[in-house]
Amino acid sequence: MECYLDNSATTRCFDEAIAAVNEEMKNTYGNPSSLHMQGVRAEKLIKETLSIIASTLKCDEKEIVFTSGGTESDNMALIGVARAYKRSGKHIITSGIEHEAILETCAFLEEEGYEITYLPTDNTGVVDLKVLEESIREDTILVSIMGVNNEIGVIEPIEAISKIIKAKNPSTLFHVDAVQAYGKIKLIPKNMGIDLMSVSSHKIHGPKGTGFLYVNKKVKIKPIIFGGGQQRGLRSGTENVCGITGMGAAIKKVFASFDEDTKRMYELREHLINRLLENEDVFINGAAPQGSAPHIVSASVKNVRAEVLLHALEDKGVYVSSGSACASNRPSVSKTLKSIGVENEYLDSTIRFSMSVMTTKEEIDYAADCFSDIVSNLRKYVRR
Amino acid sequence: MECYLDNSATTRCFDEAIAAVNEEMKNTYGNPSSLHMQGVRAEKLIKETLSIIASTLKCDEKEIVFTSGGTESDNMALIGVARAYKRSGKHIITSGIEHEAILETCAFLEEEGYEITYLPTDNTGVVDLKVLEESIREDTILVSIMGVNNEIGVIEPIEAISKIIKAKNPSTLFHVDAVQAYGKIKLIPKNMGIDLMSVSSHKIHGPKGTGFLYVNKKVKIKPIIFGGGQQRGLRSGTENVCGITGMGAAIKKVFASFDEDTKRMYELREHLINRLLENEDVFINGAAPQGSAPHIVSASVKNVRAEVLLHALEDKGVYVSSGSACASNRPSVSKTLKSIGVENEYLDSTIRFSMSVMTTKEEIDYAADCFSDIVSNLRKYVRR
Repeated sequence: MECYLDNSATTRCFDEAIAAVNEEMKNTYGNPSSLHMQGVRAEKLIKETLSIIASTLKCDEKEIVFTSGGTESDNMALIGVARAYKRSGKHIITSGIEHEAILETCAFLEEEGYEITYLPTDNTGVVDLKVLEESIREDTILVSIMGVNNEIGVIEPIEAISKIIKAKNPSTLFHVDAVQAYGKIKLIPKNMGIDLMSVSSHKIHGPKGTGFLYVNKKVKIKPIIFGGGQQRGLRSGTENVCGITGMGAAIKKVFASFDEDTKRMYELREHLINRLLENEDVFINGAAPQGSAPHIVSASVKNVRAEVLLHALEDKGVYVSSGSACASNRPSVSKTLKSIGVENEYLDSTIRFSMSVMTTKEEIDYAADCFSDIVSNLRKYVRR
Repeated sequence: MECYLDNSATTRCFDEAIAAVNEEMKNTYGNPSSLHMQGVRAEKLIKETLSIIASTLKCDEKEIVFTSGGTESDNMALIGVARAYKRSGKHIITSGIEHEAILETCAFLEEEGYEITYLPTDNTGVVDLKVLEESIREDTILVSIMGVNNEIGVIEPIEAISKIIKAKNPSTLFHVDAVQAYGKIKLIPKNMGIDLMSVSSHKIHGPKGTGFLYVNKKVKIKPIIFGGGQQRGLRSGTENVCGITGMGAAIKKVFASFDEDTKRMYELREHLINRLLENEDVFINGAAPQGSAPHIVSASVKNVRAEVLLHALEDKGVYVSSGSACASNRPSVSKTLKSIGVENEYLDSTIRFSMSVMTTKEEIDYAADCFSDIVSNLRKYVRR
């Protein structure tokens, strides 16, 4: 049995997304900038995806910029806002448990003369709202907090964060890295006080190499890639029409059955957690059920090295991740696990299961059975 | 009959590229950063494309960085080199007929305190080598010249340019925007003194949204997108595996029959030019046959507005471009046509035919027949 439980790293494309990509590559392959019918048809595909996205966010189509993925969206949000508002201030606030796409971009901005404040979290991964409030200054141009943490699945209190920001400094913008959140929890930027929001296609069964940035129309933002002036000058380069139309098809499908699917994933998540906890000395990291995304389970396993467990599971066809997959082939200590106070002996003993709408209860049971067998076997060889 | 002659704007994907993209989206969909087998399989797809590209350029696989396309490659080359070498100097040389992805990036670098010299061209579009030589200074860190001009098809004298650069200042790097050149003319960077080279997938029958930058291993370059440290830290973000593997399949096919295909395209090009010149007051822009790429024909048509001609051709199923397609839905006067001295009355009367390996002689004859009919009809209504 194959059981892919690494959906936070990437997902299998929906058939609808594959069909859309195919159709573009084969027949509707024009350049949207071309004035003839093949260009117009390609532009129509882009507009269809814009319309799909806008309906899921209840926003204007002009508030969407297509990018090459979540990383570029995060870079554009941070660098683009930093450049546009540098006269208002050079202070940015983020958390210590953000994805590398945020943390490394912040490191770059520090080199460029910006000052970054990194917020701590509590032991479930929720950012410290008191420290947030204290950190907001007159020259704070941006706060960037993720919607759902990629390693432990905790949902950050987006609306509470936004209220604190706007009460303290109404000019401070709020960016949400929603790469793990979009399609999993409800996100209506204008209702929630989100000014910018990053999304990736390949985390929600769309093709890799595409994503978007929501930018509230009142926000000024500078481009980070320059050229032919596509997308109202905000992101030059021939639009990735096949990727965009594939992403549109995936988003349409995700939101068509959002409530049922997330409910079912929450049930599967609870079932998986219960099955994992049947084993001794297994700990689930992160927030209480209601504070977690439906698809991520982070488990620390005493006396078992994550990489060994990962490969033993792999031998049985169960694919999971150790720590955060996005950078997992250059291993380093997880900032998230550190931040929530996971003890040193567990930092290297933590694996992540991540599900999708394609995941079945049979797969979860199979994965849990394999996990129990392997953990008890591995522990036989551990010195007590 | 449909006759797509806008291949410099974008191309139809090869079936082999479509199949490769399909396979990735459906079955080999892992994240190359994941440690399990699905990740390893995805990484293998990337390595296969690296190997294909490296064999076409006779370079090391480590000298290739995948990007989201030609525009990002150009941005990365210019900004990445500018940032890495800013202590050596802040002077960059380019030409006045470059693609917007170069010119707009140069405009950004000017804002950042860099000084840019724009070289003039002769009336065939070849950059002025004397002015180039005079412009190179001790603080010139980079020269960026396109391999083939996207509007008129002229091939720039890459090797001569490189020799002049290296003779005058051996530390000055040479970047070639090869978006219209790769797959059409022979390019071996190390033999030709090219240090960096930009390529786009969708101009050579691969999917949109991907491309690469060749970076000679002796060149230092800073990333322009920050995150998980993929691609040796040079370009973060989950690799666009479906795009990359599709591009690999397209490149493999292009180079399998490169000599025959380009020979045939040159014959078609000559045939098209001869057919166009059967009409009175039609002028072909750009260099002599041996100095032109095989796929582009730029024609100025007296007393006929390009946009009218374009749409009349479109009605017959013939798709061409007015000026440069990459920015053609925000019309402005073509810098290239200005630079080669096209008279004002023709600036708005110039269309571009661009072919591909898929173009047939029947299509060319049909397009030429339509062109002749339309031009003679349109001219009936022009005041003499």
